[in-house]
Amino acid sequence: MFFPSVPVPLSGDRFHVTYHIRTDDGLAGARQAALDAAYEQTVELPGSLVPDGDMQDVVGHIEHIEPLDDGYYEVVISYPVEASGFELTGLLSVVYGNISMQDRIRVIRFDLPPSLLEKFSGPRFGREGLRALVGAPDRPLLGTALKPMGFPADKLAELAYQFALGGLDIVKDDHSLANQPTAPFDRRLEACAAAVRRANEETGGSTLYVPNITGPADQVLKRALLAKELGAGGIEVIAGLVGFDTIRLLAEDPRINLPIFAHPAMLGTYTLSRDHGFALGALYGEVNRIAGADVAICTNYGGRFPTTREDIAQLRELISRPMGHIRPMLPMPGGGMTVERVPEILEFYGNDVILLISGGLFTMGPDLVENCRRFREVVESTAQPTRDA
Amino acid sequence: MFFPSVPVPLSGDRFHVTYHIRTDDGLAGARQAALDAAYEQTVELPGSLVPDGDMQDVVGHIEHIEPLDDGYYEVVISYPVEASGFELTGLLSVVYGNISMQDRIRVIRFDLPPSLLEKFSGPRFGREGLRALVGAPDRPLLGTALKPMGFPADKLAELAYQFALGGLDIVKDDHSLANQPTAPFDRRLEACAAAVRRANEETGGSTLYVPNITGPADQVLKRALLAKELGAGGIEVIAGLVGFDTIRLLAEDPRINLPIFAHPAMLGTYTLSRDHGFALGALYGEVNRIAGADVAICTNYGGRFPTTREDIAQLRELISRPMGHIRPMLPMPGGGMTVERVPEILEFYGNDVILLISGGLFTMGPDLVENCRRFREVVESTAQPTRDA
Repeated sequence: MFFPSVPVPLSGDRFHVTYHIRTDDGLAGARQAALDAAYEQTVELPGSLVPDGDMQDVVGHIEHIEPLDDGYYEVVISYPVEASGFELTGLLSVVYGNISMQDRIRVIRFDLPPSLLEKFSGPRFGREGLRALVGAPDRPLLGTALKPMGFPADKLAELAYQFALGGLDIVKDDHSLANQPTAPFDRRLEACAAAVRRANEETGGSTLYVPNITGPADQVLKRALLAKELGAGGIEVIAGLVGFDTIRLLAEDPRINLPIFAHPAMLGTYTLSRDHGFALGALYGEVNRIAGADVAICTNYGGRFPTTREDIAQLRELISRPMGHIRPMLPMPGGGMTVERVPEILEFYGNDVILLISGGLFTMGPDLVENCRRFREVVESTAQPTRDA
Repeated sequence: MFFPSVPVPLSGDRFHVTYHIRTDDGLAGARQAALDAAYEQTVELPGSLVPDGDMQDVVGHIEHIEPLDDGYYEVVISYPVEASGFELTGLLSVVYGNISMQDRIRVIRFDLPPSLLEKFSGPRFGREGLRALVGAPDRPLLGTALKPMGFPADKLAELAYQFALGGLDIVKDDHSLANQPTAPFDRRLEACAAAVRRANEETGGSTLYVPNITGPADQVLKRALLAKELGAGGIEVIAGLVGFDTIRLLAEDPRINLPIFAHPAMLGTYTLSRDHGFALGALYGEVNRIAGADVAICTNYGGRFPTTREDIAQLRELISRPMGHIRPMLPMPGGGMTVERVPEILEFYGNDVILLISGGLFTMGPDLVENCRRFREVVESTAQPTRDA
């Protein structure tokens, strides 16, 4: 009586979210937990209060449930596309908003029908577009992170120059470089973009300088536009600080027209437990991809972070699987990687990867430019034959 | 040689972050993990590459370390205030950016010196300001969440009217209400704000309608301004979707001038494990408070979420402890609460709380207005004596 049966104009299209649920109570427990989530993520009312009729289709539907191992169950819940409001923020809220506060349910992946996918442009460049920008249609790409925090802009620019001279494709700001007084954003951007341009003129190369434009909510767009104006080759965004929808905004803005590198800082917690959060691939692959990032920076397996090969295997699948008009992305794994590991890493990733080595480039010898050249030689000599070969 | 010893203009002021670290290797293991974090969160280089001199003060300093139980250690690391760039995004990045990807370190609280605190305005209203808006200087406040998703705007407005007529102080959108075609943001806002105004005119009360303005990055400010224009009494923001700095932007904007209700959707994962993330109080209390939220919506202990009394006790401490010019906030616990629990809950919280009961108001009897009145009677009869008494 509080909630009369009202007509709800629903198209009938639904999107599907795959969750893993942990329970001590067997299949019945898993079904109850799934049902709880189906209500929690939509009407957020006890089932007894939800009227018959259309409102029953506003609630999530349990489409599939099957046991895994050790008390875990795989569940697929569908929601009406209208629940998202056709906005990325609304979509994420339905996928995981309130159940983020439960310690028994994890997002594994989600699948959107055309009527929802068409609301998102996805990556402006994507894998092939980024390859075209650096003139490397097939081989693995090489990247590094500019640091350290505390260094003045001209010293950072000198390092950027050497990285570019050594033939790296991507020189991105370390995520820690924000707007510190030691190297404020605009001074760093100007100096480093100029340094990389100078190196490109000398080598004939196409190294991209990618500044970290993350900052105050009212400064992000300004920093991105300034990056474009001053000749940056891409922009780095920390979605864990400014929200995934900021990536969408930047990707859609024709004035910016630069590839977007999504950094996982602040987001790691989501990917660490089997009992909550997101599978690494769902967060860094699917969410980033729908938002419009071209590159998913991530921690690699076997580095100084607890990322697993399974995490990365899922990421690779989700960032490249067919998704309507949404372009595939490239992964950019890093975090304690060295040139010695390149053959093993390329065997795992194949050619569709941006290898991110930073600290490791400084421990190879006294000449940074030479170290970068050696990195490139190792990559080129171990990469798989090109697709056209 | 790659990194020469450069002068770094640092003030000497440092901010302090308290972490809990888990290790199997005793005090030495905890010290190493703390040292790793001190480098990871700043220069992100191996210690051997960091030059002597000022750069050693850019790196985090371990100020304190002590064993807790079960292989956990409490560590305090200080960072130079300049590392934050004096921006909230930069501050959060130093506190937890890259170590979010480690499964052994958790943020417990942080302490900012005046030189950093002064960069933030904090809550525009705060506890006392919000109390003044609803004309309740002392007693516990009463709130509810408007729902369900799927209902048309006029039906939601009718419910809002009854809640206000029944004497609740706060009628906020359920976080799930975004911009669904069934009740688009602007239509819902207009209808519900008008309904609550009508009830206030009838009762002489001061109920605030608080719409959820969370949405696309380029719409949030517009929705907040529209909320102000159409007579909303506050705004609800999901920082897990749009970033904490959006709260700061909205709190500082004099055109909006409305109390901000920070909702924890999407953020729950951060608070669930002892091994990573943030203590609940640090995230919903300190981060929200520095950002400028007036109210921390949170899951209560003993409801349908795994929040503990200890979580909430820390939240209560951190949102009200002295913090320079930064005003205290009010907590708004909810999530499966009932009127029957009010006496017990008030015994725990005291009067400085906004009780959030939504589903529970519909199971008390057939008349929603009467149910709200009974909720208010129970609160008024169990609340502690007023401060002036």
